[in-house]
Amino acid sequence: MTLRYTGIRVTDLERSLRFYVQGLGLVERKRGKMSHGGIWVNLRDPDSGVQLELNFYPEGSRYRTPYTVGEGLDHLGFDVKDARATIERLVAFGAKVAVEPWLEEGRYWIGFVEDPDGIWLEIQSAVPRAKSASTAPSRSS
Amino acid sequence: MTLRYTGIRVTDLERSLRFYVQGLGLVERKRGKMSHGGIWVNLRDPDSGVQLELNFYPEGSRYRTPYTVGEGLDHLGFDVKDARATIERLVAFGAKVAVEPWLEEGRYWIGFVEDPDGIWLEIQSAVPRAKSASTAPSRSS
Repeated sequence: MTLRYTGIRVTDLERSLRFYVQGLGLVERKRGKMSHGGIWVNLRDPDSGVQLELNFYPEGSRYRTPYTVGEGLDHLGFDVKDARATIERLVAFGAKVAVEPWLEEGRYWIGFVEDPDGIWLEIQSAVPRAKSASTAPSRSS
Repeated sequence: MTLRYTGIRVTDLERSLRFYVQGLGLVERKRGKMSHGGIWVNLRDPDSGVQLELNFYPEGSRYRTPYTVGEGLDHLGFDVKDARATIERLVAFGAKVAVEPWLEEGRYWIGFVEDPDGIWLEIQSAVPRAKSASTAPSRSS
């Protein structure tokens, strides 16, 4: 058994490709057509190897049901170098801020954005450790 | 940027753990409590390294909104040795068959089941290649 990928449904394939490829740095690996006319595009994170598949159902496809994000997909988790900068960048690519980034236990910046279809993405970055952590003040000025 | 995991929302944590750990072979890696009372359990596929996070929001959590699967998560894709046998096995763990397995281009068995919350899982297995593929008949008898 291998969990190979997560497939999300997108309502505008070009818009979502722009967002996930140019905005988030995933790379197109493979694409294909489903027998009923749908299109899948398999993306891959070059660092982690994790795959995300975009599924698009054109007009007339029997799977083109009314789109609501729903609660099944809670969120996709991304680790980045600087969560606040990434969130700003993603907003320029059509994301909406869902939860403003906050500092979690002084160790992580965590924020949530919605992708162009409203899917929640967690954007997290570790706070660089102070070189002399044991003597560093517990709060930066 | 690293796409690290997919987080799904589950409405019965023990039931979902049974399904994904005992039923599908994922392994618990880490779990934690969210500040608002939610519980996350990070599972990992020991083969691919892919991570799936189960998110559970107990009574009283502000994230415990009415649950509908929605279309945001199209499906999770699993490769297995024998799709038909796996699907039978998963039914015993509470799955419902969504699309009966079919033979795709003579090369793959593909079927879909719903997990206990109704999330679609694609279950796919490659048909073992005939040893002398070039002379094999195009259809098995």
